[in-house]
Amino acid sequence: MLNEHLSNARIIRCTVPGIKDIPVAAKKLLEKIDIAIAFGWVGSSPIDKYSYLAASIGIIMVQSLTGKHIIDVTVHEDEAERPDELYEIAINGAKKRALNLIALLKGSETLTPYAGMGLRQGLPDVGPLR
Amino acid sequence: MLNEHLSNARIIRCTVPGIKDIPVAAKKLLEKIDIAIAFGWVGSSPIDKYSYLAASIGIIMVQSLTGKHIIDVTVHEDEAERPDELYEIAINGAKKRALNLIALLKGSETLTPYAGMGLRQGLPDVGPLR
Amino acid sequence: MLNEHLSNARIIRCTVPGIKDIPVAAKKLLEKIDIAIAFGWVGSSPIDKYSYLAASIGIIMVQSLTGKHIIDVTVHEDEAERPDELYEIAINGAKKRALNLIALLKGSETLTPYAGMGLRQGLPDVGPLR
Amino acid sequence: MLNEHLSNARIIRCTVPGIKDIPVAAKKLLEKIDIAIAFGWVGSSPIDKYSYLAASIGIIMVQSLTGKHIIDVTVHEDEAERPDELYEIAINGAKKRALNLIALLKGSETLTPYAGMGLRQGLPDVGPLR
Amino acid sequence: MLNEHLSNARIIRCTVPGIKDIPVAAKKLLEKIDIAIAFGWVGSSPIDKYSYLAASIGIIMVQSLTGKHIIDVTVHEDEAERPDELYEIAINGAKKRALNLIALLKGSETLTPYAGMGLRQGLPDVGPLR
Repeated sequence: MLNEHLSNARIIRCTVPGIKDIPVAAKKLLEKIDIAIAFGWVGSSPIDKYSYLAASIGIIMVQSLTGKHIIDVTVHEDEAERPDELYEIAINGAKKRALNLIALLKGSETLTPYAGMGLRQGLPDVGPLR
Repeated sequence: MLNEHLSNARIIRCTVPGIKDIPVAAKKLLEKIDIAIAFGWVGSSPIDKYSYLAASIGIIMVQSLTGKHIIDVTVHEDEAERPDELYEIAINGAKKRALNLIALLKGSETLTPYAGMGLRQGLPDVGPLR
Repeated sequence: MLNEHLSNARIIRCTVPGIKDIPVAAKKLLEKIDIAIAFGWVGSSPIDKYSYLAASIGIIMVQSLTGKHIIDVTVHEDEAERPDELYEIAINGAKKRALNLIALLKGSETLTPYAGMGLRQGLPDVGPLR
Repeated sequence: MLNEHLSNARIIRCTVPGIKDIPVAAKKLLEKIDIAIAFGWVGSSPIDKYSYLAASIGIIMVQSLTGKHIIDVTVHEDEAERPDELYEIAINGAKKRALNLIALLKGSETLTPYAGMGLRQGLPDVGPLR
Repeated sequence: MLNEHLSNARIIRCTVPGIKDIPVAAKKLLEKIDIAIAFGWVGSSPIDKYSYLAASIGIIMVQSLTGKHIIDVTVHEDEAERPDELYEIAINGAKKRALNLIALLKGSETLTPYAGMGLRQGLPDVGPLR
């Protein structure tokens, strides 16, 4: 999908052991590239949620230090009960966030028409307030 | 409203995918401008609250690094039960915070008469303690 | 009170929209002055507590970056049930912390005789363990 | 095990008083070496979880500052009820993470075939979603 | 006790208003000295725990910035029910951590024989897993 919209883009894939390893991996990548998208899977225990919080703070810190976006696609195991639902959430969220990535690369004002429309990552959109 | 009070101000609007993307977007904007106001919408789940916490830490970090204010208008979906109430909270909070922005730009001592008066963002004011 | 103990001190008062705006305001002030004291009012909801946590991390970060103290007088709305009790806590805490500020300015070893004595900010002192 | 896969590696072992001492110890080590692996033991109380969160944020911060990985093997006392189960989790997690360390040293793309396969640190693998 | 083991050490005592003031005080001290040990007393309310979390993150941040250890002796009021128990925990924890400080000053590998032995700060040791 990214290749369709960004025909000249070079895409690098990198795998890390766990979500807390994302910030440093992203920082190293962002020395060479313009934007990153992070796919994280978070368990359902309170410990997993603390790891999610720590990773999120780290991802935000790296963005602030590099001045580059890291788009964050995080799927939480407790967002759905069945594996096929989780799979849909992950795929759906990844696709929507990839479109966000393209929009940010092209200048973030292209996202503005979608602001406040109740669009949700991975889940059905809820629509605007009124 | 901002145009009435700040007739010469240049206003830039920028949309990001989610609240955790606000800190880096604000940092990039603040290299060009004097102050930012961030409008964030936060869901009601514990995960959303952790995202709010991470985003808040990031916004505070960016302010401390740039020495510039990022006024934060955050509406939490669990602040009210009905969409029209949430809408009112969002509009009301945005207006009050925009006045704060104007006051900070003009020198923050102009906010002092309102300190301790029990004024609340987005909600009815509660009045001073006594 | 500060004027009695610090006859030559210049005192600057600054008001910000909410507690999350304290760190950057303190950072800007501390470029000109030696010490800051922050008065924050925190609501009773879990969201307010997350804001308190983010603000606290920010205040600590600014202190570490500037090498200067920001004394923190935070009153939580759930510390007491009646407004007059909260008022007493706020006034009492502010006075005790102002004395701390004076002690830190004069060299923090002057606080040592009070360490471990069970003195509490805003609340009645609880006494030493034994 | 590390010696088998990395025959020329120099391995330094360092012990610290508690998990919150890991970040600074790792930072000092990473001035001399390429990668670190941290073994932490976390109690089951809420206080221990806050210490885990603070340590995790610190470890992520040090990684981001140094641009080097700190692989994190953390065993939580409440992950299992019996000491022998905890022992298995610790040994199993340490071995899996050591393999991660080797993969990261050899270039992290070597981890990619294992991404999304439901492999878990210290616990039985859960398999891919589909 | 420190004087017995470190006959030439210069010891500076510094008192701060609350635990959130420890990071900046430690940072200023560590410009002049090699290692710090912080004694903090934490109340039992959720607010106190957030303050503990913020202080812990700050202490870790200062350690990472200075490259020097701050050993952390924190007593939580809810660790025991009776004041005399808390007193024992505080004294016991302070003594054990002071030995840690001495070990770190002499090179942290001297702590390694004690790792994984189930030694606990302030509380009875629990022994190794097996």
